[in-house]
Amino acid sequence: MLKLLKSHVSVRKYKDEPVSDETLHELIAAAQAAASSHFVQAYSIVDVTDPDKRDQLAELSKNPVQIKGAARALVFCADLKRLDYAAAKHGKTVEAGTTENFMVAVIDTALLAQNFVVAAESQGYGICYIGGVRNNPEPISRLLGLPDHVIPLFGLTFGVPAQTNEVKPRLPVEAILHTNEYDETKYETLLDDYDETMRQYYASRSSNNKAAGWTEGMADYLSEPRRAYMRDFVRSKGFLQT
Amino acid sequence: MLKLLKSHVSVRKYKDEPVSDETLHELIAAAQAAASSHFVQAYSIVDVTDPDKRDQLAELSKNPVQIKGAARALVFCADLKRLDYAAAKHGKTVEAGTTENFMVAVIDTALLAQNFVVAAESQGYGICYIGGVRNNPEPISRLLGLPDHVIPLFGLTFGVPAQTNEVKPRLPVEAILHTNEYDETKYETLLDDYDETMRQYYASRSSNNKAAGWTEGMADYLSEPRRAYMRDFVRSKGFLQT
Repeated sequence: MLKLLKSHVSVRKYKDEPVSDETLHELIAAAQAAASSHFVQAYSIVDVTDPDKRDQLAELSKNPVQIKGAARALVFCADLKRLDYAAAKHGKTVEAGTTENFMVAVIDTALLAQNFVVAAESQGYGICYIGGVRNNPEPISRLLGLPDHVIPLFGLTFGVPAQTNEVKPRLPVEAILHTNEYDETKYETLLDDYDETMRQYYASRSSNNKAAGWTEGMADYLSEPRRAYMRDFVRSKGFLQT
Repeated sequence: MLKLLKSHVSVRKYKDEPVSDETLHELIAAAQAAASSHFVQAYSIVDVTDPDKRDQLAELSKNPVQIKGAARALVFCADLKRLDYAAAKHGKTVEAGTTENFMVAVIDTALLAQNFVVAAESQGYGICYIGGVRNNPEPISRLLGLPDHVIPLFGLTFGVPAQTNEVKPRLPVEAILHTNEYDETKYETLLDDYDETMRQYYASRSSNNKAAGWTEGMADYLSEPRRAYMRDFVRSKGFLQT
């Protein structure tokens, strides 16, 4: 089992083999066994099967290859809408706009998704998270008819792998694990070591070679504000009001 | 494997058996194999072993039984601080304050945590997520010395289970899965059915019996604003500025 987890890689090319509705349902049922904050189950999944919608999702996400080529393309959504219905049954209203409830819905959805990934990989499928659905969240919300209190967090493509990448070395455990007290003094040395590890990995891998460490890529990537519209989008859907 | 996932329950009582550092490291290494948005790995884990700190964490989280009784008590944190160091190595600054980067860090941390849970459960351990660390995020941040750009999202206790609860029925798959278009018309009927399922479950389970469905509990829980300080706290740590 630890071996299965440690063998995870993003799979971007899939064989032309379908995944049945039955299998999809089975994997989702297993995924739903993940913990949920106060059992709110604040998530939905949209399964995009319509070819035209799939094409549009692919373009809007700027991930055409994975999304068009996968057996299934799912969009995982943080969802407080279903809870609106639950509350209305008892004459009440959900306080969807708090930062706390936004966090609850995002975390719930991510736990569901990761359980789905483990379930799918345990059955021989490969997956790829598609953060690209946040490239055009408003048009994608319209495409999928998402109401207020529902936002697309990420996509997930899956199918039978046609090509598998090498596993990328992660940060050393010591760099993410602190004992009793957060210790940032260790980063200087550990990040130098990790840069060296990643440089060797990037130089030696069979495709997409490059000569860079981890910190360099992070510095380039994170120093520019990305998706600066996100706050307005999230707020337009009724989240993060207070 | 699907069977393992579907057997998940929160474990709140643990045997008095330690978990070695070696095991903890092994589980974290497996957890880290989870996908990470653009490989930012925006998370940290604080392992609270000091008895005094553990007691304080237990009180501040309002979860004394689990936290004091578990072999290990971990706090999972969304963390852009390490990336500050990575960027600084190249004379750059991370745009930590965007809503997008907040979401990236929260999702990354949740994926890590759920992979950790699967890893731990596959080795016979039981776990419990402790959302209660968000009851007092500011004092807990001080207790653990969390700097800016690091916030505690949830705790996780784990150890050898002393008592295992029954698995709670989840929403039916049809209630969370939409095809091509979000369909809220189905909720009325599906939530009635699910209420009936949950009523039977709560009435028949061996402890903590109650006579209520799911929607009723949700209506009560979510109609009151919870943790209304969360936005200020998150912003005070440098997140959600824009």
